[in-house]
Amino acid sequence: MIQDGIHYDNAFADSILMLGQSNMAGRGDMGQVKPIRNPLCHMLRMGRWQPMCEPVNPDRGIFEGRFRSGISLAASFADEYARAFQRPVGLIPCADGGTYLSQWMPGQLNYDHAVMQTKLAQRTSRLKAILWHQGESDCLSSDTVAAYRENFIHMITQLRKDLGAEDVPVILGELPQQMGSVWKTEGRERELNAVLRQLAREVPNCAIASSEGLTMKPDGAHFDSPACREFGKRYFEQYRALTE
Amino acid sequence: MIQDGIHYDNAFADSILMLGQSNMAGRGDMGQVKPIRNPLCHMLRMGRWQPMCEPVNPDRGIFEGRFRSGISLAASFADEYARAFQRPVGLIPCADGGTYLSQWMPGQLNYDHAVMQTKLAQRTSRLKAILWHQGESDCLSSDTVAAYRENFIHMITQLRKDLGAEDVPVILGELPQQMGSVWKTEGRERELNAVLRQLAREVPNCAIASSEGLTMKPDGAHFDSPACREFGKRYFEQYRALTE
Repeated sequence: MIQDGIHYDNAFADSILMLGQSNMAGRGDMGQVKPIRNPLCHMLRMGRWQPMCEPVNPDRGIFEGRFRSGISLAASFADEYARAFQRPVGLIPCADGGTYLSQWMPGQLNYDHAVMQTKLAQRTSRLKAILWHQGESDCLSSDTVAAYRENFIHMITQLRKDLGAEDVPVILGELPQQMGSVWKTEGRERELNAVLRQLAREVPNCAIASSEGLTMKPDGAHFDSPACREFGKRYFEQYRALTE
Repeated sequence: MIQDGIHYDNAFADSILMLGQSNMAGRGDMGQVKPIRNPLCHMLRMGRWQPMCEPVNPDRGIFEGRFRSGISLAASFADEYARAFQRPVGLIPCADGGTYLSQWMPGQLNYDHAVMQTKLAQRTSRLKAILWHQGESDCLSSDTVAAYRENFIHMITQLRKDLGAEDVPVILGELPQQMGSVWKTEGRERELNAVLRQLAREVPNCAIASSEGLTMKPDGAHFDSPACREFGKRYFEQYRALTE
């Protein structure tokens, strides 16, 4: 058989949208954790579902580059989801390293790309969750921290509307509790984590996964692969609590 | 700096759309050829340009799976293009392994995905070429070979219209001259190659690159990495001849 894609009907899978910057895209080293092999798990490629394998979110080079694509929290989220509901599930990878929240506002490339990918995915799936992990870049200045809450509410409200999914659960995640020497945040990640926790209370159908105790790569800015696996489980616990 | 994307204006780059199935997507083994390092070459990721590195077209897994993403003809095309014109150039990877021409017709997922990616790319680039390599799947039956010419003309005419690029050059490539034991084409690749050559004469601003003498992987269906490098150069020669 030449056809190595997957055949599906209009509701083949439940789908999960991945949004944010490098810690959603995934920078965990390949090979540091076991591959997840779950035939229910898929990823969107060229508008169609393929068997999930990592890196799921190829926003950067795989074999080259300073911050290579790698293990992310999304794979273990999908695995937990598929095990819990015994349903095919597909990840829509739209995270993009190094981005500011301003790049995710409606009309910006990252936002419009995510809408477009999700609309294609919705032809063959039902959107069940939006996973968001972003904010490291915005910790670089007090101004972007101060603007985060209002801009996020504007963005997520418009996004749900544009996707025809006004009630879809949104799961946030805390930033690394201490960002190392690479990113000059001067402790503003604590302020932004407080904003994110506030958003989880304020935005309807929203929750937040804790980053407490998660281990980091030597760069001090990226969760390592075991931490990504654990973080994905925490995201799923929050999803489950929200939807039960 | 957190920002590891690229800043650009509305005409940052010339862009090149990659369409087709596995031999455009690229299945050449990584490591068999030297990486191309040309700072003028880019690839579209999440609607934005990133430094080009292979695999450019991540339609399948990189580390797992039967037909892994790998070296394609597009990287050496981009390298030749950038050297010739001394301009930034960006690849828009939309090829998808195992697809039939029927999956590339307007309204199908692969077509709509390509339009959507290219429209995002056109915000920051000028579309300069469409590279097409497809047809192995259609060699599986006489019916799909017989329908190819008419369907291709319909598709490419609509695509140019949808992209607002009615004169954009289209470069085709011949199928492998003999497809091995994996794909049961029973020699129909010769018939389809004749159709492709006819299309190159018939479609305005269209040319075709020869696959003569290109070496194959042991699977008999996919060009190996050195052949991909050479094929990309042949595509560029055809592009150059068409546009000079």
